[in-house]
Amino acid sequence: MKIPAVKGTRDFYPPQMAVRNYLVDGWKAVSLRNGFEEYDGPIFEHLKMYQIKSGEEIASQLFSFTDRGGRDMAIRPEITPTLARMVNQQINALPRPIKWFSVPRLCRAERPQKGRLREFFQWNIDIIDVEDVLADAEVIFTAIDYLRSTGLTAADIAVRISSRRMLAALLRSAGIEQDQLDGVYAVLDKKAKLPDEAFEAMLTERIGDETVRRRVAELMAAETIEAIENTAHLDAEGAAAVGELRRLFDLLSLMGIGEFAVFDIGVVRGLAYYTGVVFEVYDRAATLRAVCGGGRYDNLLRDFGGPAVTATGFGMGDAVLEILLREKGLLTDSTLSTRNVDCFVAIVADEFRDRAIELVFRVRRAGACAEFSYKAAGLKKQLKQAQALNARYTVIVGEEFSENRLTVKNMATGEQELMAVEQCIESLLA
Amino acid sequence: MKIPAVKGTRDFYPPQMAVRNYLVDGWKAVSLRNGFEEYDGPIFEHLKMYQIKSGEEIASQLFSFTDRGGRDMAIRPEITPTLARMVNQQINALPRPIKWFSVPRLCRAERPQKGRLREFFQWNIDIIDVEDVLADAEVIFTAIDYLRSTGLTAADIAVRISSRRMLAALLRSAGIEQDQLDGVYAVLDKKAKLPDEAFEAMLTERIGDETVRRRVAELMAAETIEAIENTAHLDAEGAAAVGELRRLFDLLSLMGIGEFAVFDIGVVRGLAYYTGVVFEVYDRAATLRAVCGGGRYDNLLRDFGGPAVTATGFGMGDAVLEILLREKGLLTDSTLSTRNVDCFVAIVADEFRDRAIELVFRVRRAGACAEFSYKAAGLKKQLKQAQALNARYTVIVGEEFSENRLTVKNMATGEQELMAVEQCIESLLA
Repeated sequence: MKIPAVKGTRDFYPPQMAVRNYLVDGWKAVSLRNGFEEYDGPIFEHLKMYQIKSGEEIASQLFSFTDRGGRDMAIRPEITPTLARMVNQQINALPRPIKWFSVPRLCRAERPQKGRLREFFQWNIDIIDVEDVLADAEVIFTAIDYLRSTGLTAADIAVRISSRRMLAALLRSAGIEQDQLDGVYAVLDKKAKLPDEAFEAMLTERIGDETVRRRVAELMAAETIEAIENTAHLDAEGAAAVGELRRLFDLLSLMGIGEFAVFDIGVVRGLAYYTGVVFEVYDRAATLRAVCGGGRYDNLLRDFGGPAVTATGFGMGDAVLEILLREKGLLTDSTLSTRNVDCFVAIVADEFRDRAIELVFRVRRAGACAEFSYKAAGLKKQLKQAQALNARYTVIVGEEFSENRLTVKNMATGEQELMAVEQCIESLLA
Repeated sequence: MKIPAVKGTRDFYPPQMAVRNYLVDGWKAVSLRNGFEEYDGPIFEHLKMYQIKSGEEIASQLFSFTDRGGRDMAIRPEITPTLARMVNQQINALPRPIKWFSVPRLCRAERPQKGRLREFFQWNIDIIDVEDVLADAEVIFTAIDYLRSTGLTAADIAVRISSRRMLAALLRSAGIEQDQLDGVYAVLDKKAKLPDEAFEAMLTERIGDETVRRRVAELMAAETIEAIENTAHLDAEGAAAVGELRRLFDLLSLMGIGEFAVFDIGVVRGLAYYTGVVFEVYDRAATLRAVCGGGRYDNLLRDFGGPAVTATGFGMGDAVLEILLREKGLLTDSTLSTRNVDCFVAIVADEFRDRAIELVFRVRRAGACAEFSYKAAGLKKQLKQAQALNARYTVIVGEEFSENRLTVKNMATGEQELMAVEQCIESLLA
């Protein structure tokens, strides 16, 4: 019986796994040097958790099921609700501020397409209980710090930044009611992703009044923070939001990543829970989906039954990132090794086989990687095997082994040397 | 709205995540030094994949669901079927023998109890296309190599070894029909896990004939390989299986782990797909479930629509392992750090705040971990924070900063030194 692979998911054969490990290891290292601690939750959660604040798009893409106890569950499509649940559970015991990261496996029942898969990995960074925009700057820095570590520069990518808080003030001044805001955000978030006509139709559906709609369109055409200050009727709340945004750009310069930062009022984010600064990282050519997106979500913990504690963070998926790195020539399969063989133990004749096996496993017990051929083969064939495994050395077990000596061949230089067994093991571990 | 945690699963707060990372990192390191390459598959697969060969117990514990395309899927309860599917898909392209490992997240709808969870992580090691019992010895070595690396000794654990191939020959000689074997294995596997009466009842249900049942009971009482050779009527196949088992024990001695190996005819394994050597690692006191179990499964690839290629491997879950390590005092929360802060940057007065922020992010860009206080606080309080974060150094930004100098305090020794900024960054990176 033949079983097909699962639609929209990936099989990670060793070369693909090496790519995934390269991305994940980089995420982890940058998280740690920026002072974040790792956490994780279960792969599935109660379905209703994703029906509260995840936004319509995610809620419509859940892999859900009913467990034996009759409970409705869903495979996690994002980890932020889990984060909110976990923090709320331990809110009185956890030292604050909380700086956490995670690299969850997530599933969404989307139509598979370039950069969008039904199963993917997403780096998440969050700072909880720091109201200061300094925390927003820090999460943006962390995203850029990682992307720079892969070799990407400000010529390749930019972080486009706006503020939901500012946008809310602007939309209210244009005549949008408070309870319409979430719906309007969802549509505005689609602007760059839809053909103009489709976007107009969606916007018209949400905003019936043509005057209001025209005012919103004018607002969304602002190209700089100055333009907003000059044209819009900002109330005190709006002015405070603009001030915060200015401070954010100053901080990013101070942190040494100013050249990556761009103001873009068109960045709205689809998720319902954002309340302040929002941002997305794009390739400068903007041919791909966002590499990374995030922002401030000050009400989520409260919405999940916890105290009113502020939060800010982002998510970066592996799919678009991998495409971008490959396009820029920063990721090639051949640069990533799937194994690290220190020595291949070649056996000259069958009488030495058990001695060779003994040696292989002695080397491994000592902490180095040794390989050998399961089948008897000529020395030439074994040297080829050693080469295929990319072994640093080949150790040849022959007549000299009775005198406790081995021939050691350096596979890079081709040099051969007769060595005592102990000396050989020591130099492999060095 | 309060959302409950998911029954039978774990929330990995940073201290628990540090434990998980400690286990997983160890598994990965030992896999690599034993020459295995990492792979992974998707978190869910087609349901029918687990209905073929996983055995009744696993098939009854699936978290299954129907996707939007009407396909029946299940969250993976084990990864071996995925391995078989992936290898079959690429059988002509993959260099053989294949030595792969994986650390999948798995889910089973079990009744949660000590060492058994609905979601867990399991280290898997497999060697494909090596018929020689040397491969079975190598996977057993790899399990023990890891367990030794945690500090466990032969006084703590043993690997109990038997052979399905030998057992099949013995059961046939006792009068069990070939097509009854799978059912009898499933019952015999329960012997140590059930009260005697419950076991007898299950066995009686499977083997109606009392004479046959008594013969089976006698066979299963054999304590040594010699006892089997002396008492049972071994056919040629049975004798070959016994010879293989003897060679396995010789190889384990050669590999330097002979003191861990014990023959135990009671080790049968629950899964239907085993065909040869089977083994389980237990704590010597046998108070816990098996830490690890595996064996040879020569027909699985063929059963999944591929060629007849042999295979052997094992799985080791994280739950029982963690309990064992804690019981032996080899794992204490305090030994595992959740972060690694190189320096805490303390700010003497608010006028230095932006300079301090600049420094923090400069250190991070250079690759070290720097932390600071989001809120203005006295120096004493900041030093306390530095201590709480376990920072190696505290760097104090004050008046001297205008001359490009900093006070650096070694948190272990308490020593303070005035340093140039460049020198400070260099020594943090060293």
